[in-house]
Amino acid sequence: MPPFPTVLISEVGPRDGLQSVKATMPTAAKLRWIDALYASGLREIEVCSFVPARLLPQMADAAAVVAHALTLPGLTVMALVPNLRGAEAAIAAGAHKLTVPVSASAAHSLANVRKTREQMVDEVRGIDALRRERAPQVQLEVGMSTAFGCTLQGLVPEDDVIRMAGELIAAGVDECGLSDTTGHANPAQVQRLFRRLRAEIGARAGAAHMHNTRGLGLANCLAAFEAGVRTFDASLGGLGGCPYAPGASGNVVTEDLVFMFEAMGVATGVNIDLLLAAREPLKAGLPGEPIYGMTPEAGVPKGFVQRASNV
Amino acid sequence: MPPFPTVLISEVGPRDGLQSVKATMPTAAKLRWIDALYASGLREIEVCSFVPARLLPQMADAAAVVAHALTLPGLTVMALVPNLRGAEAAIAAGAHKLTVPVSASAAHSLANVRKTREQMVDEVRGIDALRRERAPQVQLEVGMSTAFGCTLQGLVPEDDVIRMAGELIAAGVDECGLSDTTGHANPAQVQRLFRRLRAEIGARAGAAHMHNTRGLGLANCLAAFEAGVRTFDASLGGLGGCPYAPGASGNVVTEDLVFMFEAMGVATGVNIDLLLAAREPLKAGLPGEPIYGMTPEAGVPKGFVQRASNV
Repeated sequence: MPPFPTVLISEVGPRDGLQSVKATMPTAAKLRWIDALYASGLREIEVCSFVPARLLPQMADAAAVVAHALTLPGLTVMALVPNLRGAEAAIAAGAHKLTVPVSASAAHSLANVRKTREQMVDEVRGIDALRRERAPQVQLEVGMSTAFGCTLQGLVPEDDVIRMAGELIAAGVDECGLSDTTGHANPAQVQRLFRRLRAEIGARAGAAHMHNTRGLGLANCLAAFEAGVRTFDASLGGLGGCPYAPGASGNVVTEDLVFMFEAMGVATGVNIDLLLAAREPLKAGLPGEPIYGMTPEAGVPKGFVQRASNV
Repeated sequence: MPPFPTVLISEVGPRDGLQSVKATMPTAAKLRWIDALYASGLREIEVCSFVPARLLPQMADAAAVVAHALTLPGLTVMALVPNLRGAEAAIAAGAHKLTVPVSASAAHSLANVRKTREQMVDEVRGIDALRRERAPQVQLEVGMSTAFGCTLQGLVPEDDVIRMAGELIAAGVDECGLSDTTGHANPAQVQRLFRRLRAEIGARAGAAHMHNTRGLGLANCLAAFEAGVRTFDASLGGLGGCPYAPGASGNVVTEDLVFMFEAMGVATGVNIDLLLAAREPLKAGLPGEPIYGMTPEAGVPKGFVQRASNV
C-alpha cells in the first residue's frame, strides 16, 4: 500500500441535510446528532446556516447549535452564510469558519440569492472586511455552486468558474472549493476543473462537494482525490438535496465515502463503526425521513481493518 | 476533451440478473428484453447460463435464448458455463463466447462449485480442448470471482489471483478478467490488481466485473479504466446479486455506468435514451421486482450530449 496522504471529511448534514427536509429537527436532537458525529472522529462539521428563520425555520436555532458545537474540543465549527448579515450573526455566535455559496451559473445565482455573480463577489468582499475587523481568526471559504453544470442554464463555462475563483481569492477568501450542486459532474471534468483551479489559486483550492444524483458521487470524489483534493464534503445518510425519489440521494453519503478512503488506505480520522452509530440520533431526530447509504446496509466487508482514527 | 479510447459494456443482466431473482422471467419476455438491450447499442450480452434446470430453473430455456440472440447482427452472444457439460451445451447452442467462473478464494470455490481452485483450472483446460476440437472460433474467457475479497475467507491474497490468472491463460483461455463478486473492492486495490494482471498476462487481461454492494461500483470501474481496462460488465437496473435491501444493488447499474463514460467523453456505443427504454421490458417481465439506478431516476442532465452510438 503506497503511503497515501490523509483527507479531511467535512460533514455538512446538520446544515445541507437538515435545511433540505421538510421537518425541523428539534434543537436537542441536533445536539445529540452533532455529538455523535464528533464522537466518530469527524473534526469539521457545517452545523447550521445563518439565514432568516422565516425563510428556513429549520435553522432558527443556529446560534444555539454553534454554542454547543464550540464545546467539542478540536472541532472546526462551520456555518453557511449567504450574505453580510448572516456573517455578522455567525461571527457573533463564535463560528470558526464561514462558508459562502457563490454560483458559477449566472442563472442559478439570480434564482438562488437574487444577486448577480458580480454582486456576490462584492458581498464576499464585504464579509472579508467584516471578519478582518471583528474576528480575524475566523476562516472564510467559498463553495462555488453549480461549478459543473446547472439545471437552469445547462453547461457552465469552465473559464467562468476559474475566473470567478481568482476574483473570490482577490476578494479575500482563504479557500475556494467547487460544488456539484445538481449532480452534473463526471470524473474527467472533475479532474480537469480541479487541476485548473489549483493552477489558478494554488493551495487556496478547497473542498470537493459532490452530489450522488446520478450515482457518480464517489467516482467524482475519487477523481478529485487524484487531482490533489484533500477535503471532501459529505452528509451522513446522504441527507439533503434530494429532488428525486426513491433512492436518488443528494449529497455524497459520508459512510460510503469514509469506507472508500479507509479501504484504500487513505486515513480519514473517522472510526467507521462509530460513524454508522451516528445514524441512530439522526433517525431519532427525523422520524420517517428516508436516509441512504450502501455501506450501512451491507456492513464493512470481512477482513476490513479500521486504521487509527481521531477517537 | 482528450481523445479517450472507447469501452465495451458487456451486459450481464439476462444471466447474472435473472439467475439472482426468485421469479423466472418467461422466455418471450427475455427475448423482448434482449432485443431492447441490443436496440440500445449494446454489442455483448451474457444471455444465459448453461446449468442443470433443477439447480437454476430461471435458465432452463438457455438454448432457446441463445438461438434468438444469434439472430441479432453484430451481437456477441455470451453464455456462462460452470463446467465441461455446460460448455458442450453452449457450443451446441451456438454461443459465440463462453465465460467460466473460477474463484480466487479457496473457500468460495468449494462452496460455489464444489471443486478446488486447481480442479477448476483442470476443468477450464478440458473446456478449451473441447472448443478447439468442436468450435475453434468460440471465445473462452474466465471471470475470476472473489478476486478482491470473499465473504467466507475475507482477504484473498493478490499473489493467488495473479498466479491463477497465469495458470488459466496457460490452460487455454483467451481472456481473464477480475470480478468483485461480493463488493469488497476499493479503487486503490482495483488499480493495483489490474496493473499486476496486465503485467502478468498482457492483452489477455479481461473485463472488470464490479458490484455496488457498498456504493463503490462506479468508482471501482473508474479506477479500472485508469488502469487500462476497456471492458466492463454491468447489469441493467442493477439486477442481480442483491443480498441486502433496500437500495443495496448488486451489479453495477448499466445505465449509470454508460452515463458516466459518455459524460466523460468515453464512447460506449450505447444510446442512453434507448438504454433507459430497455428498463420497460425488464419491468414487464419481472413484475414487482425492485430495480435500481440513479440516472434513470434523475434523467440525463441539461446540456448532456449523446455521442455517436451503434444505433
